[in-house]
Amino acid sequence: MGKGELTRQTILERATTLASEVGLSGLTIGKLADALGMSKSGLFAHFDSKERLELGVLENAAAVFVDAVVRPALKAPRGVKRVRALFERWLAWPSRAGLQGCFFMAVTSELDDRPGPARELLVKQQRDWLDTIAHVVRTAVAEGEFRRGLDVEQFAHELYGIMFMVHHAARLLADPKAERRARTAFDRLIHSARAAD
Amino acid sequence: MGKGELTRQTILERATTLASEVGLSGLTIGKLADALGMSKSGLFAHFDSKERLELGVLENAAAVFVDAVVRPALKAPRGVKRVRALFERWLAWPSRAGLQGCFFMAVTSELDDRPGPARELLVKQQRDWLDTIAHVVRTAVAEGEFRRGLDVEQFAHELYGIMFMVHHAARLLADPKAERRARTAFDRLIHSARAAD
Repeated sequence: MGKGELTRQTILERATTLASEVGLSGLTIGKLADALGMSKSGLFAHFDSKERLELGVLENAAAVFVDAVVRPALKAPRGVKRVRALFERWLAWPSRAGLQGCFFMAVTSELDDRPGPARELLVKQQRDWLDTIAHVVRTAVAEGEFRRGLDVEQFAHELYGIMFMVHHAARLLADPKAERRARTAFDRLIHSARAAD
Repeated sequence: MGKGELTRQTILERATTLASEVGLSGLTIGKLADALGMSKSGLFAHFDSKERLELGVLENAAAVFVDAVVRPALKAPRGVKRVRALFERWLAWPSRAGLQGCFFMAVTSELDDRPGPARELLVKQQRDWLDTIAHVVRTAVAEGEFRRGLDVEQFAHELYGIMFMVHHAARLLADPKAERRARTAFDRLIHSARAAD
């Protein structure tokens, strides 16, 4: 990694943390320059627009997510164990990445009615993530642990709902049972995928 | 309702619609005055600060929600029918209220890290709403339709997760199956509440 690339990476990491606190809209070049102790013009050399910065942050957050959640979960044995690893890693990733709650949950409602390249990239990332979950769930069907004909996309959607709820319950309601509730919901989801229809 | 109260109500209705589009943070006295064709000073006569306006909007949205969801659902027979009425009304309320998606889902991630009176009011409203759901679910336990010992708060949390997912899938991903998926998840929730442990 050259010096330019290293600086770019440092900027993106700081920007991702900042965006997880103030949102992508609240992330200004000025605020970020302050946080990094850099000049605005120095920052502009790496990101010549707010839009490029936002796209960079989304890409960086996705890379962190893949490293913290997807890659290690794929090392778990195929089937329910892998589905569970995905869930547990997903629950834990914000604190592992030093973020205040899930970055993607936070930017979702921010971008959902803000058309443009950042929204398009987020939609693509979210669809890819739902596909990844469905793909991992399919390994449990293939292993005979989940029933044949299971709607793996429905499973992925419901798992997403559980994560939204835990994010909401932990962040807004400061519910100490948030994670326990998420695990109970997850166990019910696993159980109903196992049962014969 | 006196003339002053009527104007106040008109302002709040317009402000709620606007906030469901641009967020509470994006709702400025200037923007709202423009949308209403009023002068800023005329608006200030009713809401002398951004904070009061935000609190008014949250209270108004909650009143609309109670009228559109809670009150009619409570007219359904006690038990599963009432739980289902709550769910169906909840799904439908944004379009009935002329809003672009659920107002509360939209402001949740906006306020979760913004301490202050608006956040406190939202937390109270959300806890009350979870309590209302749990209370309605309890009628199904009392009627013998759901099993004794069912964790009604867990049920309320999971139902919330389903609504988050449908909001997300419809608004960000424009998933045409969003509502159908929500109904499938809801049926599974009902089914598992019926089953003996």
